[in-house]
Amino acid sequence: MKKIINDPSTVVTESLRGLAAAHGDILKVRTEPAVVYRADAPASGKVAIVSGGGSGHEPMHGGFVGLGMLDAACPGAVFTSPTPDQVQAAIEHVNGGAGVLLVVKNYTGDVLNFETAAEFAAAEGLDVRTVVIDDDVAVKDSLYTAGRRGVGGTALLEKIVGGAAEGGYSLDECEALARRVIGSVRSMGVALTACTVPHIGEPSFVLEDDEIEIGIGIHGEPGRRRVPHQPAEQLVQTLLEPILDDLPFSSGDRVLLFTNSMGGTPLVELYLAHGIAERLLADRGITVERRLVGPYVTSLEMQGMSLTVLKVDDEMLRWWDAPVRTAALRWGA
Amino acid sequence: MKKIINDPSTVVTESLRGLAAAHGDILKVRTEPAVVYRADAPASGKVAIVSGGGSGHEPMHGGFVGLGMLDAACPGAVFTSPTPDQVQAAIEHVNGGAGVLLVVKNYTGDVLNFETAAEFAAAEGLDVRTVVIDDDVAVKDSLYTAGRRGVGGTALLEKIVGGAAEGGYSLDECEALARRVIGSVRSMGVALTACTVPHIGEPSFVLEDDEIEIGIGIHGEPGRRRVPHQPAEQLVQTLLEPILDDLPFSSGDRVLLFTNSMGGTPLVELYLAHGIAERLLADRGITVERRLVGPYVTSLEMQGMSLTVLKVDDEMLRWWDAPVRTAALRWGA
Repeated sequence: MKKIINDPSTVVTESLRGLAAAHGDILKVRTEPAVVYRADAPASGKVAIVSGGGSGHEPMHGGFVGLGMLDAACPGAVFTSPTPDQVQAAIEHVNGGAGVLLVVKNYTGDVLNFETAAEFAAAEGLDVRTVVIDDDVAVKDSLYTAGRRGVGGTALLEKIVGGAAEGGYSLDECEALARRVIGSVRSMGVALTACTVPHIGEPSFVLEDDEIEIGIGIHGEPGRRRVPHQPAEQLVQTLLEPILDDLPFSSGDRVLLFTNSMGGTPLVELYLAHGIAERLLADRGITVERRLVGPYVTSLEMQGMSLTVLKVDDEMLRWWDAPVRTAALRWGA
Repeated sequence: MKKIINDPSTVVTESLRGLAAAHGDILKVRTEPAVVYRADAPASGKVAIVSGGGSGHEPMHGGFVGLGMLDAACPGAVFTSPTPDQVQAAIEHVNGGAGVLLVVKNYTGDVLNFETAAEFAAAEGLDVRTVVIDDDVAVKDSLYTAGRRGVGGTALLEKIVGGAAEGGYSLDECEALARRVIGSVRSMGVALTACTVPHIGEPSFVLEDDEIEIGIGIHGEPGRRRVPHQPAEQLVQTLLEPILDDLPFSSGDRVLLFTNSMGGTPLVELYLAHGIAERLLADRGITVERRLVGPYVTSLEMQGMSLTVLKVDDEMLRWWDAPVRTAALRWGA
């Protein structure tokens, strides 16, 4: 295993130190338990948006902390759920008096630990709501999941609902908007190569030289099937069709298209795939209103990509376009 | 070779199509010859900044086209210099009447082809200047270079001089500022793995399981030496010391620190390395005034990183902080 680390047991803590040093104007980091929070937290009178999950998916979630997006992120160990005390610490730290919305990806450990923290907070009289995102159409139940997994749609949800919270939405309104996004977003991914978790030291799975895995999970969980490698045209179609058929999306729909790298895919390939996806959507009469292209929801150094399609309306577009100032997403500020 | 492509011979063209689709509000693309240019080009009365080089280093340079940075970028084939007619087309397209500055990385093919285009433009009466950046301290002459190679410092130069051009600097002033940046910036990189050029289909070089290459070039050109893999603490020191000794940088200096991924290195590792570099600079009494962390000057899917240190003054900081709106760098706009 060749990684730029000192010791597998301190990777996350040391990385958070670097994150804090790089973006001190946007975020701060506390450890024991580890929380990344907005430099100006708590934002008084604003609904606080808190998320988190295993590390190794950077920039999600720490890179999404800042004005117009998350108030705090709880980074677990690599590919491991954050603990309830991390989530509790985050809630306490960013609570501005208008309630807290927890954004949880649908993995069993994440759901349980966020739920436990929410119960503690509720017992202390805080108004805490939880939404669970499960946008991955690849498989129903999975290695770490009852139901579908939460993947790329999470980044879009956090931007849109974070923007709305910054814009003065109440907790009820934030929760309702989040549920609408969850109901309107679908994703699917593919792996060309595996990735290696530092404290394991071996690739999570093995793909042959000419083999890819369709429907891969962001922790390398099994997808739908392993197939021979295929040209980009066919690959993008293989990812896009199950997404479009699932909601379903249809002619006349307006969408946000998110072409995401799993981490190790060069941008030259990612843009190539994005161009194909744009064309396939246009062919179906679907209008791409906004785009996001880049490595935002990753699996360490895994080569591969995912597509996420969100059916948008004017309200979602308004908060997508609203100013954001985080390490990973920034515009208008 | 597993890549998300259709045909090695059309990778760049198809990728540019995706880039244009993704960022139509920022840039436009023309082909035959291929040029990426600002959507609002030409900017009348503004000095135009033009760069380019082989593809495979994305987001450099196409992702740096837009308000406050480049007016145009000329993407060559993967790891191949752009042709003179690309550069000529770019110059003609973005010339706003205040002159054109060509920013060229020091590779023999790039220097020759930009020079040829500059001569044509001069013959037509245009005021065109050229600056050549050679910030890589690893090796003096190299596979494609007489003298040092141009690497990570290019992104910093393009932001700072692009900001100044947007702010109304004359061609003389832009050129002088660019030369000052070149005189003040130094870089060095390391490869943990090789990368594969699509039309070659095989890795450019081979590193053993526990071997890394110090001083690697961004096309995989040989560096200083191959050594056993080492902990991040030692690795960052190995990169930073030759940089600091070269200029030299000394206690009391103010710097911009750029921690760059070669493409395939996870952000969790990159931030970890960045934190170490910040601490080592502080230990030497050097003040980090600004930071950039991410995959900006890449070598396809290569795992590895580079450090770039720029000795800054108030003028450079002013134009670094100025608004920028490109696919890859964006703030204040």
